[in-house]
Amino acid sequence: MKVKVSELLSMCETVLQGAGMDKEEAKIFAKILVKTDQRGVKSHGVMALGRYVSLLERGIMPKKAQYMVVEENDVMAVWDGNRSCGQVMGYYGMTEAIKKAREKGIGLVGIRNSSHFGAGATYSLLAEQEGMIGITISTGAPVMSAYGGAGKAVGTNPLAISVPTEKELPLTLDMACSVVAMGKIDNMRTQGIKEIPAGWALDANGDPTVKTDEVFAVAPVGGYKGFGLSLMVEMLAAGLLGGGMGEQARDDDMGPSYMFMALDPKKFGQGEAFTSRVDQRIRELKNGKRCTNSQGIFMPGELEELTNQKSQENVEVIDEIIEQVNQIGEKYHCGFAIKAVAE
Amino acid sequence: MKVKVSELLSMCETVLQGAGMDKEEAKIFAKILVKTDQRGVKSHGVMALGRYVSLLERGIMPKKAQYMVVEENDVMAVWDGNRSCGQVMGYYGMTEAIKKAREKGIGLVGIRNSSHFGAGATYSLLAEQEGMIGITISTGAPVMSAYGGAGKAVGTNPLAISVPTEKELPLTLDMACSVVAMGKIDNMRTQGIKEIPAGWALDANGDPTVKTDEVFAVAPVGGYKGFGLSLMVEMLAAGLLGGGMGEQARDDDMGPSYMFMALDPKKFGQGEAFTSRVDQRIRELKNGKRCTNSQGIFMPGELEELTNQKSQENVEVIDEIIEQVNQIGEKYHCGFAIKAVAE
Repeated sequence: MKVKVSELLSMCETVLQGAGMDKEEAKIFAKILVKTDQRGVKSHGVMALGRYVSLLERGIMPKKAQYMVVEENDVMAVWDGNRSCGQVMGYYGMTEAIKKAREKGIGLVGIRNSSHFGAGATYSLLAEQEGMIGITISTGAPVMSAYGGAGKAVGTNPLAISVPTEKELPLTLDMACSVVAMGKIDNMRTQGIKEIPAGWALDANGDPTVKTDEVFAVAPVGGYKGFGLSLMVEMLAAGLLGGGMGEQARDDDMGPSYMFMALDPKKFGQGEAFTSRVDQRIRELKNGKRCTNSQGIFMPGELEELTNQKSQENVEVIDEIIEQVNQIGEKYHCGFAIKAVAE
Repeated sequence: MKVKVSELLSMCETVLQGAGMDKEEAKIFAKILVKTDQRGVKSHGVMALGRYVSLLERGIMPKKAQYMVVEENDVMAVWDGNRSCGQVMGYYGMTEAIKKAREKGIGLVGIRNSSHFGAGATYSLLAEQEGMIGITISTGAPVMSAYGGAGKAVGTNPLAISVPTEKELPLTLDMACSVVAMGKIDNMRTQGIKEIPAGWALDANGDPTVKTDEVFAVAPVGGYKGFGLSLMVEMLAAGLLGGGMGEQARDDDMGPSYMFMALDPKKFGQGEAFTSRVDQRIRELKNGKRCTNSQGIFMPGELEELTNQKSQENVEVIDEIIEQVNQIGEKYHCGFAIKAVAE
């Protein structure tokens, strides 16, 4: 159903504050959750509210970010997230990386042992909005097999890069190292779907399977390439920062670790020319010859940005999610329920 | 055949100097070419000698690197490569990035408009040998379709990351954004092979093809993921640096652009613990459960490193390549021919 962005925001804020979260941080968190739905990335939006509230309730996630600076200089920092809210830490981390990048062109902030931060694009887009290239990587709990292995060995460890433009829509790649998200298969199973396309997943023996009931791990994209990329993300975002690796990346263990980087084109000899050159390249690619039955040549993040533009006032959210959100709202005495808006 | 590393090195050096290349740079270049064969990456080793000599002969590649510093501070630099030898620029670039990383943990050197530098792992490994994480990305001439498109839209734009270890073999991922290299399909066609596996390539209309004769472009790995990653590499390595994008990345146009980054674990609060933690994670992964018919769980770069260790004195090179190298050697009056060594 379509619901009012303002109502959804208000509900999330109230719930988070009700669960004891710091007022300002609840605002940041709510805004990021709702923005994720506005971009059409339903898997990482308000759908996850219940899970985060549970982390707050169980005392696994501190009610106010309590991170510790491990290392710092004018271009980089390493923070220990102490399992603070991932979205808040992500916001703080990329904001600091952007600030540092203004000086020497590069800003890097690594945050070890925080909690799941939702969609990586959220943070890369903070840099994009400041005219910079934003790069975000994160570890996650293992759900993907090693190449040649069986079982859950590495996370899908997403990589998100956002590039500013002049008139065209910003370029935003947000990809996991698996062929598909485990959540996608879980949803299909819940909906009673028995078969998935070949190549998506592996059973408990590490053999390819198309049966949703037999899925144990997701397959790395491109075989050894996806496995290798995932491992490298882990080495950079967790290994290098002293964060938890492998199973330790679970939210109720040491938690995921991330790395944010901002690069300022103005410090790379580009000045204002950068965004117009990006625009030109986008137009060249979009005007290229299409393949048979092409749905169009879409740039990374183009569909999400179009969805975002259409969702400024009202946003489409799955009915069941709104039901869940309203239930949580009731528990925290929000005093109102979100209703569908007339189109 | 197996040939002496010392003979191959001496031949390459003599040929490159004979073609007018600066003495010291010919040494660096020859060493990188031969090291690439020692790592078993035949596609980017001495096989390419003829092509590089032709660039020198035609005056497209300057006989001594003549790069220009566009921007510089204590953590980053942008150079214009002026189509200088890619291997030499790569060596200079990563060496400078390593030097900068010693100060503040990060060193970034971007080089626009140089020439094809061979295998990206070469440069990431320079950082690894200094106890740092090395990251290398490069553009290349378009040979891959856009997702939804037909024709050659983007390069396969490789990404290479190397991570130092204590006792285990270093981790080195070196991957292109395509399912396979165009060169691999070209080689198969030359050998008279008529069919390739499904998913590797597209015909001139952008439709999938398994016929080597119909191949026009290679397919991006993971569909939109490979296309998106390739475009992001182009934005970082060329767009951000003011380098040639798209078709301009050809060696005889503006040339490929690269970005090198070195990260020093000692500056990330890790000290000596880093490499032993990496070792531990490698052992955990390698000792994991294997899938049915597994050939083993191999870490990124493990096979190349094992090949390298076995190739310290003698190296395996395809017979036809040695023939070609000997022919070039004769042209430049090298005074000797490389012969197979007895095993």
